[in-house]
Amino acid sequence: MALDELPIILVEDEAVIQDFVEDTLTEAGFHPMASPTGEEALTLLQSGVVRYRALVTDINLNGGMSGWEMARRVREIDPSFPVIYMTGAAADQWASQGVPNSILLEKPFAPAQLVTAVSQLLNTGNPSPSM
Amino acid sequence: MALDELPIILVEDEAVIQDFVEDTLTEAGFHPMASPTGEEALTLLQSGVVRYRALVTDINLNGGMSGWEMARRVREIDPSFPVIYMTGAAADQWASQGVPNSILLEKPFAPAQLVTAVSQLLNTGNPSPSM
Amino acid sequence: MALDELPIILVEDEAVIQDFVEDTLTEAGFHPMASPTGEEALTLLQSGVVRYRALVTDINLNGGMSGWEMARRVREIDPSFPVIYMTGAAADQWASQGVPNSILLEKPFAPAQLVTAVSQLLNTGNPSPSM
Amino acid sequence: MALDELPIILVEDEAVIQDFVEDTLTEAGFHPMASPTGEEALTLLQSGVVRYRALVTDINLNGGMSGWEMARRVREIDPSFPVIYMTGAAADQWASQGVPNSILLEKPFAPAQLVTAVSQLLNTGNPSPSM
Amino acid sequence: MALDELPIILVEDEAVIQDFVEDTLTEAGFHPMASPTGEEALTLLQSGVVRYRALVTDINLNGGMSGWEMARRVREIDPSFPVIYMTGAAADQWASQGVPNSILLEKPFAPAQLVTAVSQLLNTGNPSPSM
Amino acid sequence: MALDELPIILVEDEAVIQDFVEDTLTEAGFHPMASPTGEEALTLLQSGVVRYRALVTDINLNGGMSGWEMARRVREIDPSFPVIYMTGAAADQWASQGVPNSILLEKPFAPAQLVTAVSQLLNTGNPSPSM
Repeated sequence: MALDELPIILVEDEAVIQDFVEDTLTEAGFHPMASPTGEEALTLLQSGVVRYRALVTDINLNGGMSGWEMARRVREIDPSFPVIYMTGAAADQWASQGVPNSILLEKPFAPAQLVTAVSQLLNTGNPSPSM
Repeated sequence: MALDELPIILVEDEAVIQDFVEDTLTEAGFHPMASPTGEEALTLLQSGVVRYRALVTDINLNGGMSGWEMARRVREIDPSFPVIYMTGAAADQWASQGVPNSILLEKPFAPAQLVTAVSQLLNTGNPSPSM
Repeated sequence: MALDELPIILVEDEAVIQDFVEDTLTEAGFHPMASPTGEEALTLLQSGVVRYRALVTDINLNGGMSGWEMARRVREIDPSFPVIYMTGAAADQWASQGVPNSILLEKPFAPAQLVTAVSQLLNTGNPSPSM
Repeated sequence: MALDELPIILVEDEAVIQDFVEDTLTEAGFHPMASPTGEEALTLLQSGVVRYRALVTDINLNGGMSGWEMARRVREIDPSFPVIYMTGAAADQWASQGVPNSILLEKPFAPAQLVTAVSQLLNTGNPSPSM
Repeated sequence: MALDELPIILVEDEAVIQDFVEDTLTEAGFHPMASPTGEEALTLLQSGVVRYRALVTDINLNGGMSGWEMARRVREIDPSFPVIYMTGAAADQWASQGVPNSILLEKPFAPAQLVTAVSQLLNTGNPSPSM
Repeated sequence: MALDELPIILVEDEAVIQDFVEDTLTEAGFHPMASPTGEEALTLLQSGVVRYRALVTDINLNGGMSGWEMARRVREIDPSFPVIYMTGAAADQWASQGVPNSILLEKPFAPAQLVTAVSQLLNTGNPSPSM
């Protein structure tokens, strides 16, 4: 299936992390599209030109908007939009700043963790515990 | 078991709703303690005098703080504090304004819904689907 | 809050069970509205006159339509409509005939089980396991 | 539906707690049957005379067997048997001593918490979060 | 571990999709075995010659049986059989036609989504949210 | 991100399985550190020299301690420590011997199952079903 059919918005200002995430998502079959700030990413989303499937965002970003705020704005547009946060320092704020049904990846994290997180949120059903 | 051992902070400015919630929680075996504003409720929580077990809050409140903001402040103090929102008009904002692992009761709701919500959040484990 | 604001469609052809369910739901703060067949219940739903909040249905019903089929039709109209099945004999068919995210109550069941089931499905969030 | 059709094994050696739990479960429509020790409760279960539906057990018990051990033995007999623990002092041991998909009620707990816990574990499906 | 120990039934009539799914599952360590129709797949399952571990099926299939019906028949044989649907056009029917605890992958989907879905359903426990 | 930042304790006494698991985890971006017995693994954990992120353990092990017991000891140290069991013969004991919120992989299992399991347990949030 064509890669450009699963565009994921990536908001990350550190080049090293951006490359890592882009490579990981591309290899898994997604199409990451990077923005260095939350403001630009929101503009992209709202333009409606591309039908993005998920948001992967760092918390501490360039621009005035944090990843926490970015995700809230995205959810105002689409209440079920998949949200994945990445952070090193701000992980303990998820319980107060995260949106419901989001995933947080605490740095450092393995490529597999990111891929599993995005996949889970994109799948319909995604069942829970079973015995 | 003594009722005053399960104090629940209740933030509600409409007298009718406050009575309804107090009666419901009391009958279920909890001990609701009402504050008309988020600011006062936070002060109570932070005082540490009473070990509250959960927060039940309306969204549109007296005072400058909404229920959304109230819950975030509470979670900054205790990341696992049980949070239950009640709202009529603001229900569709939960996906962007709610905290993770919270419950929202959309007005009108039955007493049983409130009791089930508080009970689920207080129980450890609280399993998921099974087949 | 007014009882008639939480109408629940009840599809049950045995008078004893119907009374039991009606009493249980009413006492919990819901407003059960009974139909003896799936066909009539669907007509009620589709009329749009009342904004029903959930379906509680037996499996073996009067009329040609089983509870399994009834629930599928309801979900075609509203994909997120809360569905609760009640059955004695057909319980083991849920894994093949039930709709996703539904609850099945195996007879005999306690009033509390029915109330908890309806409450869970009506609450937004309804979190899962925690440690 | 007849009360004796939903027998719940209750293992509790403190008379006050036993009365509280028996009253709560009976009022909710269950039929609690009390044993003062885990050993006796296991004998009852294994006799097969009564088809018990769930176990509600304290942790610190008369007899040599703790509630933790009791629950393991029960799960050896029936891997999906609903298990609810009650404890004041041993709550923090659940993560190492509890069985999967069990619920722990930390004393003091409200009657509603116990009823919700038993109901959830008896219902098939018992869905998880929704947005 | 030997690849032929994790046989997965694959029901897909489009050659391109079949190749994509076979390659993806094989690379992940599974052993996909393809049938072009639901009828043939059911015959394979019922023969008992191979102990299949999961079903991955398209919805619109050759033969009279849709993927929805296929999955129901499989669940009649084994109520806990893992079910993964793939579809482009029929995704919105999952809420009325899907079986409980199944996963639906909406085309286009990434290989990682399919692998995560199958893995989740095969793992015992597969926990839910945590804070 | 540096591989040695995600150390996973691996307790496995069969060389073939140990190699398989080490290769799988390494390729996924984790850093497996193998111990042949539960006793040695516990000593490593308790030393605090390395901040391990998860436990992957077989059930039948060298030394007196089984994987079941190993996991309980780990959870006494850290109640939220991610636990993944691997077993061929002892899978049906998970319901009585497993710890809450753990995952069991029944041999034979695909590499993808192991990677998904570890990733799920390391991610914060890790949401449940959605419709």
